[in-house]
Amino acid sequence: MDASNDPGLRCWLTAAAESEFPIQNLPFGMFTTAGDDQPRAGVAISDQIVDLVAVERGGVMSFPTETMLRDNLNELFEFGAGPVRRRVSELLTAGNNELSRVDNRGILSRAAATMHMPFRVGDYVDFCSSEQHATNVGRMFRPNDPPLMPNWKHIPIGYHGRASTVAVSGTPVRRPAGQRLGADGPTFGPSRRLDIELEVGFFTSHPTQLGDTIPIAAAHDHIGGVVLVNDWSARDLQAWEYRPLGPFLGKSFATSVSPWVVTVDALAPYWVEAAPQDPAPLPYLAATPNRALDLQLEVDLNGTVICRTNFKDMYWTMGQQLTHAASNGTAIRSGDLYASGTVSGQQPDQFGSLLELSWNGERSIQLDNGESRTFLEDGDTVTIRGWCEMGHGQRIGFGECIGTVLPAKDDGGGI
Amino acid sequence: MDASNDPGLRCWLTAAAESEFPIQNLPFGMFTTAGDDQPRAGVAISDQIVDLVAVERGGVMSFPTETMLRDNLNELFEFGAGPVRRRVSELLTAGNNELSRVDNRGILSRAAATMHMPFRVGDYVDFCSSEQHATNVGRMFRPNDPPLMPNWKHIPIGYHGRASTVAVSGTPVRRPAGQRLGADGPTFGPSRRLDIELEVGFFTSHPTQLGDTIPIAAAHDHIGGVVLVNDWSARDLQAWEYRPLGPFLGKSFATSVSPWVVTVDALAPYWVEAAPQDPAPLPYLAATPNRALDLQLEVDLNGTVICRTNFKDMYWTMGQQLTHAASNGTAIRSGDLYASGTVSGQQPDQFGSLLELSWNGERSIQLDNGESRTFLEDGDTVTIRGWCEMGHGQRIGFGECIGTVLPAKDDGGGI
Repeated sequence: MDASNDPGLRCWLTAAAESEFPIQNLPFGMFTTAGDDQPRAGVAISDQIVDLVAVERGGVMSFPTETMLRDNLNELFEFGAGPVRRRVSELLTAGNNELSRVDNRGILSRAAATMHMPFRVGDYVDFCSSEQHATNVGRMFRPNDPPLMPNWKHIPIGYHGRASTVAVSGTPVRRPAGQRLGADGPTFGPSRRLDIELEVGFFTSHPTQLGDTIPIAAAHDHIGGVVLVNDWSARDLQAWEYRPLGPFLGKSFATSVSPWVVTVDALAPYWVEAAPQDPAPLPYLAATPNRALDLQLEVDLNGTVICRTNFKDMYWTMGQQLTHAASNGTAIRSGDLYASGTVSGQQPDQFGSLLELSWNGERSIQLDNGESRTFLEDGDTVTIRGWCEMGHGQRIGFGECIGTVLPAKDDGGGI
Repeated sequence: MDASNDPGLRCWLTAAAESEFPIQNLPFGMFTTAGDDQPRAGVAISDQIVDLVAVERGGVMSFPTETMLRDNLNELFEFGAGPVRRRVSELLTAGNNELSRVDNRGILSRAAATMHMPFRVGDYVDFCSSEQHATNVGRMFRPNDPPLMPNWKHIPIGYHGRASTVAVSGTPVRRPAGQRLGADGPTFGPSRRLDIELEVGFFTSHPTQLGDTIPIAAAHDHIGGVVLVNDWSARDLQAWEYRPLGPFLGKSFATSVSPWVVTVDALAPYWVEAAPQDPAPLPYLAATPNRALDLQLEVDLNGTVICRTNFKDMYWTMGQQLTHAASNGTAIRSGDLYASGTVSGQQPDQFGSLLELSWNGERSIQLDNGESRTFLEDGDTVTIRGWCEMGHGQRIGFGECIGTVLPAKDDGGGI
């Protein structure tokens, strides 16, 4: 195990051990402060941020260059976040005092920072890799057919989403308008079935050139880090538009990601063997081992946890997703986002969307404040949380992915 | 009419009138020369290029700044290509000698230039807006159902494609490998049904913010310029993967665009009223007038023209496509690419894909060299050409969109 993952490692910030950002985590993000609106790279530790630009300027870290630390993490992860994280780990280890050479030790309070999109997203791909989710949706919408499509157990099914509307946690989500099919044909107006999808995504690190592929054994070399994703969905728009070319406007109005990118290095202890796949995948997708991430997840709606599940039970793994997506020779860039699709476990309280939790609107979801929901109402706040268990009550946390629904801009009469 | 579109306007480059790039056209592109590998913006005139950086440095054009002329056209079109084109038109008009103050008059031979991607593509959307194409595909693949889906005449159906593999004309196209369904289930290997799609696309100019929409009357204000598009398609990969989330790897290996972006200003005389739509579109899509582009198109395969058609017969127009795509409040950036979908006319020699020309591989397409094709073979070269007729034999040309098929990288046994 990398020394930076050692559960016994201690930080000189004594509160760090109880945080979801202990010294064993050290996720990367982009932030600004009140006095400086140039987004710059930082590493979260406890309730603080190590300002990598300040540390670089202080001469304590001879790489990367300051240019790599501006605007987004794309260049830094293409260069390699691993060495930077290991150096930050050294600097924060109890007994190290090198940061005393930097103003304020290069550290500021997370409460004083505004977080920004961690990456400039080149392409955004969304998969559908939970067997339970795919089965649930099939049962609801195609009750007379087998719930899974014939291709589902052969291909990690996915599609391209919209890169321009991937936004950092906290960005409000405007209820979209669009075409909804009614008894008298389609009308245009605000979505009446606004939903969430609990997902986990990874950003790519090292790029490939047009024509290159990624062998399954090398897939994790291109995964830079992992975030929580909320793939907001307008079910009524989606249901009317999606045949035969897939989801378009029912998805492309907003996709939220958590601001702190947990690196593959920090996650190294938390990969577990995925469940065996039947039928066996084709050789190009046969991973040995086939690594699933043991990541606890929960969805909170207005203060009530409405779903608790685990990411390790997904049918298709991140490695298989990336190798498949690259198998036609498409170019991968640093900062592409690949999201998992809705994470749904086998139990009804493990379903990762309101569509499933309310079984297509047939069942009300009770909230602790006495209200109930089928789909989202204006003003609702959805918070996704995730963490890996270190043991002894310690966690490698992912922070939160939050969004609040704003009302549609007009009454639906037009644009 | 803008003076720059006047058919009587004459350039001091006397050969320009017979070219598809006369002074009434003046499309923008990005180029490099042997001695300078920094892509810079130019305007095509006849068989020459006006080097906008040289003209700017020569002090003849006080705007835009040189920064806007580097790497891609995104900033220039966000600023506004119209004023720049009108100034270049003045400089090239017979009698004007201002360019004599610039080294070599700021002009170089197109033969000495290498063309690059005109824009950094933020998001790429591909529509399916030809009724004949949608009907043909429906007849082939769903022979027992109505050929058009119930949504087709209500929605300009589209989906997100992959931005990273949109490439400039001339970029070779590697035959992709992928999953193909056979009698014994899927296997992985090179596509056996490699196809083209004749399309026309537009790049956006002025951006919108998250939550904004674009009223139909304002749609053309956001269209910067138009290019020819070849949406290369692997039909066997596509057929197996596309349900229920749409095309993914069957499309994302390559999309070619012509290098010279013909501006909406140059196209002003060539918009015609689109055919009436039945049923009437919902109010947000009801354009008055509903403008179609009278653009002649042809597809050449290894020297034989296999398709001649016209873009004006598309069911959904560019304005409707953009207004629909923005109707859910998604953010539009300068340099997004919106492609039309396959342009197919009603006659069999007007079909814009080999899938339709060969009717799903049932009919051979005869070439002038004695060969025949159903789908593409390695080494085949496809050239798309397009032009608007000015009258008197003159044209506003789009140049060419060319690609040659390279063999798959391996024998299909693996990656």
